Amino acid sequence: MLKLYYSPGSCALASHIALQEAGAAYTAERVDFKTNQQNSADYLAINPKGRVPALVTDRGILTETPAVLVFIAQSFPQAKLAPLEDPFAFAQMEAFNSYLCSTVHVAHAHRGRGYRWANEEASFADMKRKVPETMAACFALIERNMLRGPWVMGDSYTICDPYLFTLAQWLEGDGVDVSALPRVIDHRKRMAERPAVRKVMEEQLAPA
Amino acid sequence: MLKLYYSPGSCALASHIALQEAGAAYTAERVDFKTNQQNSADYLAINPKGRVPALVTDRGILTETPAVLVFIAQSFPQAKLAPLEDPFAFAQMEAFNSYLCSTVHVAHAHRGRGYRWANEEASFADMKRKVPETMAACFALIERNMLRGPWVMGDSYTICDPYLFTLAQWLEGDGVDVSALPRVIDHRKRMAERPAVRKVMEEQLAPA
Repeated sequence: MLKLYYSPGSCALASHIALQEAGAAYTAERVDFKTNQQNSADYLAINPKGRVPALVTDRGILTETPAVLVFIAQSFPQAKLAPLEDPFAFAQMEAFNSYLCSTVHVAHAHRGRGYRWANEEASFADMKRKVPETMAACFALIERNMLRGPWVMGDSYTICDPYLFTLAQWLEGDGVDVSALPRVIDHRKRMAERPAVRKVMEEQLAPA
Repeated sequence: MLKLYYSPGSCALASHIALQEAGAAYTAERVDFKTNQQNSADYLAINPKGRVPALVTDRGILTETPAVLVFIAQSFPQAKLAPLEDPFAFAQMEAFNSYLCSTVHVAHAHRGRGYRWANEEASFADMKRKVPETMAACFALIERNMLRGPWVMGDSYTICDPYLFTLAQWLEGDGVDVSALPRVIDHRKRMAERPAVRKVMEEQLAPA
């Protein structure tokens, strides 16, 4: 039985949706960021990085969203969540997910986690002010160059879709004018209607 | 014939080494960051993100180091650069590479590219001052928890190795005390002795 550690509002939503879409047998356990549970000794023993997601498997623990997603896709091939037989298409999928983790998620993190990269309050405020611009630029590139439609990779739903959906949750909070992103918003709506996504959102948004 | 766009000193070194290790037929073309060639119209037509690496294949162009690396590993399976038949081991490899791209490379980038995330000179200086601390923390985690030895994933050389080698090039320049990282430095030395690495380093360091 797989066990996913997540926090509501975090990027762990992508892995949670992928598990549900895959039809995996899993449990999901909430990590309470409000009480800093992610940095407790118990949780650091699971993930020494103090982050979510972490996926406990019978072989060991996996971290990092793109890796957890690809593990789910490869472990449940019948769910067809990735082009497993086509190295080029697979790499395109990985390129999209790498962009999300290394550029888009990082741009967003400068809104509330500036202390990771600087020490002064003035720097945190400066970083925070720039987030609407950087997130808008990231999503403009996704809108224009990356999202093929109806799904990220085109006709096939893949592990890119829950990941994009997850980061697109942050747009309004990050001050991005979503009227400039009709295709991204259309994708987000289409995702929200999927039964697997509804089920996971209900669970993540339920009171603790 | 594959064609890699790279810039000396950039993370494209990892893909360059992987191509060489794979025995791939490829050419490598330098992008001149000093003249801002990465943002020229010609290069933006190749990679609209204005970054390296970009790998031109007969099916299209791939970007993002983890994706290029996995494409090389899957396209040249005889080179055994990844555990292609083991989803858990494959995901562990991807988790390592995701950490490098989304956390380690990002920490390093705050030394010279603070303008990506802030607007004020004082913020850039603040970010730059913190880089020795953040990079030391990243590499301490790698030293202690991730690098199995002799290679990143243990006995098998994988696409994690050229990627770690590439980012480890930046340690001294980022002000990290490498005496605290004997295993990382040992790995870096072992990598530097490989014929494929020597050949690529010679090419990248040759005068333009």
